[in-house]
Amino acid sequence: MTSPSASAPAPRIVRNLLFIMCDQLRADVMSVCGGPVPTPNIARLAARGVRFDKAFVNAGVCGPSRTSFYTGRYPVSHRVTWNRVPMPVDELTLGHYLMDAGLPLHLLGKTHFVPDTRAAAHLGYQVDTAHRGLFREGGFVPIERYDGHFEPEADSPYRQYLLAQGYDSDRPWTDFVIGSQQADGSAADGWLMRHAPLPARVRAQDSETAYLTRRAMDFISAQADTPWALHLSYIKPHWPYKAPAPYHAMFGPDDCMAPIRDARERQDPHPVFGAYQRLEESQAFARDEVWRAIRPVTMGLVRQIDDEIGRLLDHMESLGRLDDTLVVFTSDHGDLAGDHWLGEKEYFYESVMRVPLIVADPHPDAAARHGSSSDALVESIDVVPTVLAALACNPRAHRVEGRSLLALTRAGESPPPWRDCVFGQLDYAYREARQFLGRQPDACQGFMVRDARYKFIAWDGYADQLFDLRDDPSEFDDRGTDPALAGVRERMRDRLLDWFATRKHRASETLEQVEARTHAHERMMGIQIGRW
Amino acid sequence: MTSPSASAPAPRIVRNLLFIMCDQLRADVMSVCGGPVPTPNIARLAARGVRFDKAFVNAGVCGPSRTSFYTGRYPVSHRVTWNRVPMPVDELTLGHYLMDAGLPLHLLGKTHFVPDTRAAAHLGYQVDTAHRGLFREGGFVPIERYDGHFEPEADSPYRQYLLAQGYDSDRPWTDFVIGSQQADGSAADGWLMRHAPLPARVRAQDSETAYLTRRAMDFISAQADTPWALHLSYIKPHWPYKAPAPYHAMFGPDDCMAPIRDARERQDPHPVFGAYQRLEESQAFARDEVWRAIRPVTMGLVRQIDDEIGRLLDHMESLGRLDDTLVVFTSDHGDLAGDHWLGEKEYFYESVMRVPLIVADPHPDAAARHGSSSDALVESIDVVPTVLAALACNPRAHRVEGRSLLALTRAGESPPPWRDCVFGQLDYAYREARQFLGRQPDACQGFMVRDARYKFIAWDGYADQLFDLRDDPSEFDDRGTDPALAGVRERMRDRLLDWFATRKHRASETLEQVEARTHAHERMMGIQIGRW
Repeated sequence: MTSPSASAPAPRIVRNLLFIMCDQLRADVMSVCGGPVPTPNIARLAARGVRFDKAFVNAGVCGPSRTSFYTGRYPVSHRVTWNRVPMPVDELTLGHYLMDAGLPLHLLGKTHFVPDTRAAAHLGYQVDTAHRGLFREGGFVPIERYDGHFEPEADSPYRQYLLAQGYDSDRPWTDFVIGSQQADGSAADGWLMRHAPLPARVRAQDSETAYLTRRAMDFISAQADTPWALHLSYIKPHWPYKAPAPYHAMFGPDDCMAPIRDARERQDPHPVFGAYQRLEESQAFARDEVWRAIRPVTMGLVRQIDDEIGRLLDHMESLGRLDDTLVVFTSDHGDLAGDHWLGEKEYFYESVMRVPLIVADPHPDAAARHGSSSDALVESIDVVPTVLAALACNPRAHRVEGRSLLALTRAGESPPPWRDCVFGQLDYAYREARQFLGRQPDACQGFMVRDARYKFIAWDGYADQLFDLRDDPSEFDDRGTDPALAGVRERMRDRLLDWFATRKHRASETLEQVEARTHAHERMMGIQIGRW
Repeated sequence: MTSPSASAPAPRIVRNLLFIMCDQLRADVMSVCGGPVPTPNIARLAARGVRFDKAFVNAGVCGPSRTSFYTGRYPVSHRVTWNRVPMPVDELTLGHYLMDAGLPLHLLGKTHFVPDTRAAAHLGYQVDTAHRGLFREGGFVPIERYDGHFEPEADSPYRQYLLAQGYDSDRPWTDFVIGSQQADGSAADGWLMRHAPLPARVRAQDSETAYLTRRAMDFISAQADTPWALHLSYIKPHWPYKAPAPYHAMFGPDDCMAPIRDARERQDPHPVFGAYQRLEESQAFARDEVWRAIRPVTMGLVRQIDDEIGRLLDHMESLGRLDDTLVVFTSDHGDLAGDHWLGEKEYFYESVMRVPLIVADPHPDAAARHGSSSDALVESIDVVPTVLAALACNPRAHRVEGRSLLALTRAGESPPPWRDCVFGQLDYAYREARQFLGRQPDACQGFMVRDARYKFIAWDGYADQLFDLRDDPSEFDDRGTDPALAGVRERMRDRLLDWFATRKHRASETLEQVEARTHAHERMMGIQIGRW
């Protein structure tokens, strides 16, 4: 940060963090990012920051993607390669780093984090009282952890809240939050996609998005002038696809973007792509009636998020918190919903890997770029170093693999040199796709490198994939074996190799510790190597 | 193991493990491996097993190499990239695995292991009583840990032993074990290489090699018929270069192999190679008087090891232990001692990376191959899976990256398909070489892939290196930028990429756990994804 001169007014200091994550929100849905769903409130946020239009997750599924957002490390480094893979007991997250700086990272909503209790027990680690919560929650301090898509536990505050509002059921979430009523009065199971267009029985103000937002507002109020950090982690527009009124009916099938797909993609696809096409959700979303039922509901859920963000911004503004809070808004991955004849996520298409990312940095040095957008290639792993830099914490450069986006939010007319490609990883060991292909669980990884023009994917045991995003932005034409592009593939493989070779796997000593421990230093300990 | 038929005599079962490691013993010194030092006793051991003539370490320096030997994982996976880098708190070693099987892995000698106590404290892990020793010693159960090259601590059994034998000094190791007397009666500092030819003041029977061997013999006797596992880890012929009589004078300069080096190597060397040439030990060993002083002493120390191995084998034979004990004999890395104008180790030359490896497998199925040699490309990481297989323990296939050598020791006339290249890693962040090059501590890694013909090295920030081992077995001619070999380099880079992409970084779930946790299984938990 710049030092104020004696006569200048004291600069505003970034003191708080609000890290908002949506779940399964693709980059091209919101109007603020050029999409069809009006999002005036998220646009208000963007006006206070920089919108990153080429922001990519490092994995296309919750668990590994979130762990990259939370650790600032690629999946090969944090090793949480799929959902509910326990985080290795030596990993640290933003929560640990902020706790070291005296700023607990509070949590409202989802993390998908799983502690490696088996390893801890096997290694004989008894987690001490002060760290037990951090261990269990991956460094977060939950106000209320709520991962969604399950009936909440009996002691869950959200469940208690639902019961107190009169949603009288043993399963208030199942029956009201994702439950609907059919025309004949019978219950409609919210898990089944054919029921998606029916309104949830929950009132909008009692739905997950509204509930979590209200809790966030209450938390922010309660902090008064004490610095705080909060991860507000919505579980929408992720499945089960169900919106409360009026959001369920705000959009119709003709308001949607049609799936990005082409008949060519079903002809002799790459083996892994072909296996993903065979998954149940892919078979479902391949049918027009399915995406036409689901996409409008997703849009309604996004519209609801925008409304809630509006309430939250109003609240923060009234408290002055927009002036001293770094706000990050993003999603853990996108959504296929029929693109490329696939459902859900995971595969390396832009629909999955590209996400919205807005960084609203209230620092005076960032004012010049407020309301602008950036085409810099940024990644999930950049959030941790951005937060650490904004809050003037130790950058943990021996572990953190991302780059601080403050170099872009606070840059003047000439931003610094930036990375020219991003990286992704998919471990499909846990999916039926592996069984379709008859592969072992330790032979199911793919790695993506994407630069401004090409997307290259290296698969264990199969041919490479390659897309020319300039000539084929829809990614229909896999040129992974096209002899004309052999040179491109070689170059992309070289970049992938360089990337692998420079990961931060030596994480148990800081760079300063390495510096102090030179060979010369060993001599001082009495060892004299190679002296005649 | 094969099942005996009802009438067959009960087969001998491999019940014990003796894992012998030397420190800094190159592959071409011992007569059993074709070298100049008579090693009849190690030859006796080889006659009971298979000698691997293409055995390579995965790193050319103690810490990372040993951690690969002990974990069965490459340095990129175990992340101990140099000496005394603490082992991450989630890693496991052979000691942990054998302890799980009820067979503590006892230790006599060196491991160079450093626990990550800082990380454990930071994460709030209090190591419980049962695991405290394992944590501190990386899974080993020390009878006596003795890492060498320091004056032993006051309570060290070896120090107590020396004092009891009458080596009267505050520093019995410094003054007697590595200390000598000059012609004028004054003390000669054992650290200085010019004093290497003088005999140590210690009697051979009280030197480190003899002391550790005797302790091993005592341990084996004491076990009687109880199964046991022992890592006997000599600290020789590692520096300080000092041998007791008569070993100090058994060989002279003319008995040595001359250094493998060529004037060409000093002309415009690869930057990293050039930086290593500037290290103090390299400058010293470049002088003829230095290698001519050191190499004979090293040979004497190797000869002493052979004599001690003879005593150990006699002892085991008398107890019947050669019939039920898997014996592994190897070294943690080789030794340059002037080769390529370098001293010591680390760099990727054959003198460093290739080590002796003998696996004496007493199982009846191995008898047919006793006394044979193998040119299969094997690696340090193969020791753990070999031991686990021989002792019928869980193979830990989700973590262990090596392959069991029983496929070779117990093979018939047609051994199974085997790997066709080996991999190495060097992190020179801790060396002055980094400072010479002006690099940051996180930008100093090199990776080697070596197949039957080529050795390829990829460096962070510098050109590749490439040696054609068929046409240039001495590795004088770096063809890393030779346009004629661009295709070879591309192929080697591809292999390196494939290797990186298939590392076992997802280590917190077993393969069986992954198998059980399929997508179909999630449905049974109430989640229905993508169902219409």
